[in-house]
Amino acid sequence: MVLNIGGTSMRLLMRPLEDDQVSVFAITLFVALLCACIVIGHLLEKNRWINESITALAIGLITGTILLFTTEGRSSHVLVFNEEFFFIYLLPPIIFNAGFQVKKKQFFRNFMTITLFGVAGTLISFGVISFGSAQLFKHLNVGLLELSDYLALGAIFSATDSVCTLQVLNQDETPILYSLVFGEGVVNDATSVVIFNALQKVDLSHITSDVALRFTVSLSYLFLTSTLLGVAVGLLSAYIIKKLYFGRHSTDREVALMILMAYLSYMIAELFSLSGIMTVFFCGIVMSHYTWHNVTDNSKVTTKHAFATLSFISEIFIFLYVGMDALDIEKWKVVGKSPGTSVGVSAILLILVMVGRAAFVFPLSLISNLTQKLASNKIGLKHQVTIWWSGLMRGAVSMALAYNQFTRSGHTQLMGNAIMITSTISVVLFSTMVFGLITKPLISFMLPLQNHSTGPSESELSSTKPFMVPLLPNGQDEQIEMNGCEVTRVGSLRMLLMTPSHTVHYYWRKFDDAYMRPVFGGRGFVPHVPGSLTESLLQ
Amino acid sequence: MVLNIGGTSMRLLMRPLEDDQVSVFAITLFVALLCACIVIGHLLEKNRWINESITALAIGLITGTILLFTTEGRSSHVLVFNEEFFFIYLLPPIIFNAGFQVKKKQFFRNFMTITLFGVAGTLISFGVISFGSAQLFKHLNVGLLELSDYLALGAIFSATDSVCTLQVLNQDETPILYSLVFGEGVVNDATSVVIFNALQKVDLSHITSDVALRFTVSLSYLFLTSTLLGVAVGLLSAYIIKKLYFGRHSTDREVALMILMAYLSYMIAELFSLSGIMTVFFCGIVMSHYTWHNVTDNSKVTTKHAFATLSFISEIFIFLYVGMDALDIEKWKVVGKSPGTSVGVSAILLILVMVGRAAFVFPLSLISNLTQKLASNKIGLKHQVTIWWSGLMRGAVSMALAYNQFTRSGHTQLMGNAIMITSTISVVLFSTMVFGLITKPLISFMLPLQNHSTGPSESELSSTKPFMVPLLPNGQDEQIEMNGCEVTRVGSLRMLLMTPSHTVHYYWRKFDDAYMRPVFGGRGFVPHVPGSLTESLLQ
Repeated sequence: MVLNIGGTSMRLLMRPLEDDQVSVFAITLFVALLCACIVIGHLLEKNRWINESITALAIGLITGTILLFTTEGRSSHVLVFNEEFFFIYLLPPIIFNAGFQVKKKQFFRNFMTITLFGVAGTLISFGVISFGSAQLFKHLNVGLLELSDYLALGAIFSATDSVCTLQVLNQDETPILYSLVFGEGVVNDATSVVIFNALQKVDLSHITSDVALRFTVSLSYLFLTSTLLGVAVGLLSAYIIKKLYFGRHSTDREVALMILMAYLSYMIAELFSLSGIMTVFFCGIVMSHYTWHNVTDNSKVTTKHAFATLSFISEIFIFLYVGMDALDIEKWKVVGKSPGTSVGVSAILLILVMVGRAAFVFPLSLISNLTQKLASNKIGLKHQVTIWWSGLMRGAVSMALAYNQFTRSGHTQLMGNAIMITSTISVVLFSTMVFGLITKPLISFMLPLQNHSTGPSESELSSTKPFMVPLLPNGQDEQIEMNGCEVTRVGSLRMLLMTPSHTVHYYWRKFDDAYMRPVFGGRGFVPHVPGSLTESLLQ
Repeated sequence: MVLNIGGTSMRLLMRPLEDDQVSVFAITLFVALLCACIVIGHLLEKNRWINESITALAIGLITGTILLFTTEGRSSHVLVFNEEFFFIYLLPPIIFNAGFQVKKKQFFRNFMTITLFGVAGTLISFGVISFGSAQLFKHLNVGLLELSDYLALGAIFSATDSVCTLQVLNQDETPILYSLVFGEGVVNDATSVVIFNALQKVDLSHITSDVALRFTVSLSYLFLTSTLLGVAVGLLSAYIIKKLYFGRHSTDREVALMILMAYLSYMIAELFSLSGIMTVFFCGIVMSHYTWHNVTDNSKVTTKHAFATLSFISEIFIFLYVGMDALDIEKWKVVGKSPGTSVGVSAILLILVMVGRAAFVFPLSLISNLTQKLASNKIGLKHQVTIWWSGLMRGAVSMALAYNQFTRSGHTQLMGNAIMITSTISVVLFSTMVFGLITKPLISFMLPLQNHSTGPSESELSSTKPFMVPLLPNGQDEQIEMNGCEVTRVGSLRMLLMTPSHTVHYYWRKFDDAYMRPVFGGRGFVPHVPGSLTESLLQ
């Protein structure tokens, strides 16, 4: 009797939820799978091939298959891939955390190279993939595709998966490579999204030099304003927290304000159609340079790990999502009529992705090397190959753009659109699984001089390292990064012999200490909290 | 030209988002308002009348008014109050955090009283309000209301606002009062939701003693299973984290797993139509007792503050939401035709809420006092008045239940339904604003012996206190709570003189140390992390 009542009231409690698209069952299943991914990912950590992304993708695929059988082939996914959900909720924490945890010195030292790779490189890749697909798809029976579709394909497959890159590369093991590939990935994602959006409004029947010029101006304008917006919001958060002395009253309020203002920067950028990805990335950098030093010790530990955790959950969520959505029966049914074409298209796209990336990594590395005077700053051939390989993975950004282009107004029934969607899924799955599997061993093989620790992972190491910093001698020119791992002493004589970017960095430091830090706070510019014993340990 | 391109691409970027119900503008506005609430709330903190809930409500009302004027009276709210959103995303973090941070000893010492107040009290209040409204509304012209509507009103207005209670009462200033009122609030919320759901399935035309019996059995069954589920999930998380040694590898993974498993407990409870509120509350208690001691120091600091921050953001969100939604023009237009009736209904409901609460606080306190032998455990008259007053606020749970009952199948156009919705809004606004404003000064007046600090707030104090704990002498019987504020030494002789609940606690401690902690971890049962300097400070 009791069970009966329970059963009836269950339906009653579910009733209002059924009306909504979000079902309690779907959320429960997803959260349970996320837990499973973390546990299994942890158990497989010692394995040098597998990473967390691949685990999540595999679990997603397996769950999709099980659902497919239990629902007797009707449906394999409990949540349909939704690009708004991805761009509004899942992507911001990942990119913000990347900016927040990035080694600022490495990033800005390689700033020019990163920008060159991210903007010029993406444009080259876009050109190669668009032209290549337009030429090669003619020989296949792929249904009706217009010029705009080919250009869209170029933008879709130029977006490197910066999420997967984060998983495969390690900031502490290969710092230069990490900052180059990941920094490029962020700029590259932004460039792809900008190209994609710009394409949808340019009149493609009249491509003139005027259009190209407007396109370039528009791109520069977007990059500049997006960066400035991120910097402005970051500085505002630093100023508010420093001025109002939040931390002396409530750690929770400080942390809440940092999270909300970071998210606000992204949403404002999206509202004014700037690149939210770039905005939130630079907001993260500014917050880690100023705001983070204005808060209490508890807030420092909390923000560092809470942001990393949110990013971590979003990453697994995305791969789980992509894995489960890959088995969508509808699209595969349409494609199933001509399996050969589908395989051909996927293979061509994969090859174009590889060629397109090679077409800019090697030439641009050459240009970058020509501008560098110090041999240590030049990019060697082995590094070039690693950069090329590490950026081959395609992920959720490509998926989201492809869904936007090819499922508009429910056109998945069309042959051409269905093939493009399934091919995107195939490329994403193949590149993440196969390229992703090989990347870790490849880096060990190509760059064997680096120390590949097999002990505790880096995220744990970096979190305990700050405690060791005060043991090192203190000096005026010493630069201790947020993670406390990088301590360099720059003599004034050596300074003159160094490359321009170092001198720029020197003047920036002077400006920062003289004008910025007194206003916005930062290391050494915020009074100590009385009564907090860990202050000296954590600083 | 550039701006023009920006403008066009803005529309393009917005295009897919416009399709969705969630607009970028609404989210941006909400996040900006949340930031404003935190800053203004911080500035008003010294004010002894205002609390954060009232600030958020006021900002919501002001924004609603501005929107009303700028849209020329068409709409005042950018997001419509959505009960699924509230129950699935906003409520769980608040209740989980309450369980996680609650002083376990105080809570379990008063467990019987809390259950008595929460279950029997809510039933009495439900009866008084249902009967009272059915009798009194006859004399007003309130449109067509059925018996089920009156019973629903009873359930709706029996739900104390535990969120607001958390804001007004302070765990460190008035610990006994806090655990009584808040603990009662959690059980009370759960009881109201259970009554509400049960009502919708009982055939009200045949109320017999059989129905009453089934109702009681169903209620007990739900409370028991909900609690057990929460305990089970909490223990599972402790076991997994202890067994797999997560912390030695990644703090982020630990924190992610704790967040996800806490949420999972809530969702499983909802899926099986148990009381998610009770489940997640007990899951929080178990996690703070076992799981929290199995993680690294960084995870300890992070979880403590991350959970509090999430809860804090959800709380402000709810009040902002309620404030903005209060000015929904549609409902007020219908009601506007008979303003007298609307005011009358609101006033009657307010009085019934006060009478209903008085009808159980004073009699049940008497019963509770009769069972207590020690004078110090008895509830004095001043405390009774404070308990009565502190639970008068009605909040988001009432709103959500009212929307569920009176807006089903778009019946807001009906006179009776519209009046019930606007009256609910009026009662929520009035009780939160007016009762809320008076509560803090009332407590100071009624219980002046307590120490009311005006320095740094308690959340900051409690977060620095753990560092002081190792300075105190260690003993076998010493009981250090998670917050480190409560250190009591219980002699074996005194033990015999104490009330039964203390002896139960003593045996529970023995059982815990002998069987539970060796399996699930807990204070003193987890090996130290080598190389972590703060270990001794944070333990």
